[in-house]
Amino acid sequence: MDQSDILRALRAKAEQLDLEDGLAERACLFDLPRAMIYLDGNSLGPPPHGVVDRLTRVAGQEWGVDLITSWNKNRWMELSSRVGAKIAAVVGAESASVRACDSTSINVFKVLSAALPLRPARRVVVSERGNFPTDLYVTQQLLAGLGDGYELRLIDDAATDLDAALDDTVAAVLLTQVDYRTGRKLDMKSVSARIHDAGALAIWDLAHSAGAFSVALDADGADFAVGCGYKFLNGGPGAPAFLYVARRHWNAMPMLAGWMGHAAPFAFTPDYRPAEGVDRFLVGTPSVLALSALETALDAYGDIDMASVQAKSSALGDLFIEAVETLCDGQGVTLASPCDASVRGAQVSFRHAEGYAVMQALIAQGVVGDFRAPDVIRFGFAPLYLQYAMIVDAAKILSDILRTKAWDRPEFKVRAAVT
Amino acid sequence: MDQSDILRALRAKAEQLDLEDGLAERACLFDLPRAMIYLDGNSLGPPPHGVVDRLTRVAGQEWGVDLITSWNKNRWMELSSRVGAKIAAVVGAESASVRACDSTSINVFKVLSAALPLRPARRVVVSERGNFPTDLYVTQQLLAGLGDGYELRLIDDAATDLDAALDDTVAAVLLTQVDYRTGRKLDMKSVSARIHDAGALAIWDLAHSAGAFSVALDADGADFAVGCGYKFLNGGPGAPAFLYVARRHWNAMPMLAGWMGHAAPFAFTPDYRPAEGVDRFLVGTPSVLALSALETALDAYGDIDMASVQAKSSALGDLFIEAVETLCDGQGVTLASPCDASVRGAQVSFRHAEGYAVMQALIAQGVVGDFRAPDVIRFGFAPLYLQYAMIVDAAKILSDILRTKAWDRPEFKVRAAVT
Repeated sequence: MDQSDILRALRAKAEQLDLEDGLAERACLFDLPRAMIYLDGNSLGPPPHGVVDRLTRVAGQEWGVDLITSWNKNRWMELSSRVGAKIAAVVGAESASVRACDSTSINVFKVLSAALPLRPARRVVVSERGNFPTDLYVTQQLLAGLGDGYELRLIDDAATDLDAALDDTVAAVLLTQVDYRTGRKLDMKSVSARIHDAGALAIWDLAHSAGAFSVALDADGADFAVGCGYKFLNGGPGAPAFLYVARRHWNAMPMLAGWMGHAAPFAFTPDYRPAEGVDRFLVGTPSVLALSALETALDAYGDIDMASVQAKSSALGDLFIEAVETLCDGQGVTLASPCDASVRGAQVSFRHAEGYAVMQALIAQGVVGDFRAPDVIRFGFAPLYLQYAMIVDAAKILSDILRTKAWDRPEFKVRAAVT
Repeated sequence: MDQSDILRALRAKAEQLDLEDGLAERACLFDLPRAMIYLDGNSLGPPPHGVVDRLTRVAGQEWGVDLITSWNKNRWMELSSRVGAKIAAVVGAESASVRACDSTSINVFKVLSAALPLRPARRVVVSERGNFPTDLYVTQQLLAGLGDGYELRLIDDAATDLDAALDDTVAAVLLTQVDYRTGRKLDMKSVSARIHDAGALAIWDLAHSAGAFSVALDADGADFAVGCGYKFLNGGPGAPAFLYVARRHWNAMPMLAGWMGHAAPFAFTPDYRPAEGVDRFLVGTPSVLALSALETALDAYGDIDMASVQAKSSALGDLFIEAVETLCDGQGVTLASPCDASVRGAQVSFRHAEGYAVMQALIAQGVVGDFRAPDVIRFGFAPLYLQYAMIVDAAKILSDILRTKAWDRPEFKVRAAVT
C-alpha cells in the first residue's frame, strides 16, 4: 500500500470505531476549539460544560451576595468531602476515604509523613528515579527534615527492579502508576502485594491514572494515594488535588495538620485533636472557587463505566501507535511507550532528536501535545472528548511535518518557560 | 441626652466623617448587597468589581480556548510572584520577598520549618495560647514530627509575657499580630526587636493585618511572615495565602518542597535544587483560578495610601465603640477589644453571654458580623467599602436587639456548622 492507501484504511477504521463508541455522547459535554486536536488532556483537561457557569454563580452569587453565610447556606464546608466522594467513585475507593484538597505535592507530603510512623523501625522509602520529580523532591526534603537515618532508595523500574529493593528496612514505596514520560503503567494489585509481602506500605500517585482508566484502590490494596484534579478530571489549571487513605489507616496522622482537620474546627481549642477518618488530612481553608470548578467538572464522569473509559483510552493509543508507525516510518520517531495497552496509561510518547521543535510545529498546526525533556513528544488520549478520527488526523499531520521537516524553523526552537 | 439625641449626634458625626473620607470613592469598586451592613470583611472580603469577569475570562478563554498554551501565553507561571508583588506593596515588603501560594496553615509550616534550622542549637517555639488555633496545630505537629526535644512554649499575652518566655533555647516566636478574638494588635517593630535581642526569629501571621492597616515587614524586622488572601484582601473564599521571607533568609529551606520551587522545574531532574530567593517556598502547581481572582481583587489596593487605610479602620472602630457604649449601655455587652486604636486591629469585639444568638439576630436584620466561641461577637471594619453612617446604623440595630431581647428566639440558638 502507498501512503494514501494506508491513510484511507486508517481513516475507515477510525470512522468505524467512532460509530461504535459508547462514550461518543460524552464529547457533547465539552466545547473544544474546532481547529484543534487536543492531545494534552493528560496535562490540562478542558472545561466541561457548566464549569464556567458554576464559577460565575459561585463568585457572583455565593461569594458576592451570600458572602460569609455561604459556608453554611451553600455548604462550602462540605466541598472537600463532597468532591472527594465523586473522585472516589472514579478511582475505586469508598467515598469516605478520599478528600479533595491542596496540591498533589502537598498531599504526597501528608500521606508519606503519615505512613512512616506506621513502620517506626524502618527508615527507607523506595521510589523510581524517573518518578515525577515533585514526588522525589517532597520525599527528599521530608526525609532530610526527619533526619534520624531516613533515606530515599531509587530504582530504575519498579516493574523489574522492585523486589531487589525491598527488604525489612523499607517503610514505604512511593510509585506513580503511570510514568509521565513513557506512559508505562504498573499493575497496582500485584505491585501492592509485593510491597506488602515485604512489610512495607504502598503509596500510589495517580496523577495520570485518575479518570484515564479503571483504578481499584480499595480492591488492589493501596495504603495511601494521591492524585491530580487538573488532568483527566478536567478540574481546571492547578485544580485541587486529592488524597486517599485506606480505612485501615484512618488513625494515621500526617505531620502537616491544620484547623480544617481538627475534630471541631470552630471550637478554637489550642490543642490539636484530629478529626475522625480522612478529614484529619485537611489542613487550611480550601479554595472554594477551585473546588467548585472541580466538582462541576466531575459531572462529566457521572454514572460512567470506567471499563469503557479504559477500553477507549487503550484503543485511542493503539490506533495512534499504528498510524504513526505506518505513516511516519523512517522519519526518526521511535516509540517510547509500551506497545501493549494493558501496561500503558492513556498516553503515547515518541522520541525524536528534535522533539521540542517537532512539538512546536504540531501545535502550530493545531495538534496540541507536549514535550518532556530531553526528547519526548507526548500525546494524551482523554477518552471523554476525543474521537478516533482525530487520532488519524493528528498522525497524518505529524507525518507531514516530519517528511517536510516543517519543524526546522528557528521560531520552533526557542524554548518557552513552560514546556 | 436621651437615646434619640445620642443617635442624632452620632449620625451627624458619621455623616461628617463620610464627607471627609479620602477613601470614599474606593467603595465604588464594590457592589455589596443594599440591605446589608457587612462587618465581616475580616473573615471573608466581598469581590471587588472585575473579579467575576476575570474569572469568567480565565476559565472561558484562557482555560477553555488557549488551554495548555496559557502557561506561557497568559503567563500563568508568573501568577504566584506577580500576586506576591502586589501583596508586598500592601505589607511593606520588597516585591521579591512575597509569594502568593497555598493556605496560611501550609505557609506557617513552610516558614517555621525553614526557620528552625537557622537556630540549630535551640528547640523552643514560643507562641500565644490564644493564637489562631491552626498556627498552634501546625506547630505542634511539626515539632512532634521533628522530635529531638522540640517544644512549643505557650504564653498568655505577648504584650506582657514575652520577655519572661524568651531565653537562649528559643528558636522562633510565632505571633499573630492581631488577635482574632479581641483585635489586640502587637507592635511589630518593638516585639521583633525583643525577639531578636534574645537571638530568636520573629515569624508574623498577618491574617488580620494585611490590608487592614499599615504593615512594614522589612522595616520592622520580621524574619518570616504569612497571611491570608480572603479577609481584607478580598481574594475570594479560601483564596491563596501568602508568605514573606526577609532577604537575609533567602537561603533558608522549608521542609515542604515541590517542583514549583525547583531552580528549573521543567528540567525534570530527580534531585531537588532549590530556586533562588523566595521561589523555593513554592511547592505544587498553584490554582490559576484562585490566584487570578486574588490578583484582580488586589487592584482595589492599587496606589493606595496605607496610612489612610489605617486611619479609617481606626476611626470606624472608634466610632463603633462609642456608638455601642452609649446606645447599648446596661444591655449586657462588654468591650473585648482595646479601646485604644493604636493597639487594635480593624475589628471590634464585644462579649455577651448570649453572643451566638445575638449575632444570629443581627444577621437576620442585615448586620453581618460573626461569633467566636465562647461569647465573642466580632465586627470587622474594612476601610475600603464601609461608610461611617453604616457603623452607627449597625450599633442602633444592635441596641434595639438587646433592648427588645430579639435574640431570644429558638432559631437563633441552633448552632450552624460554621460559626
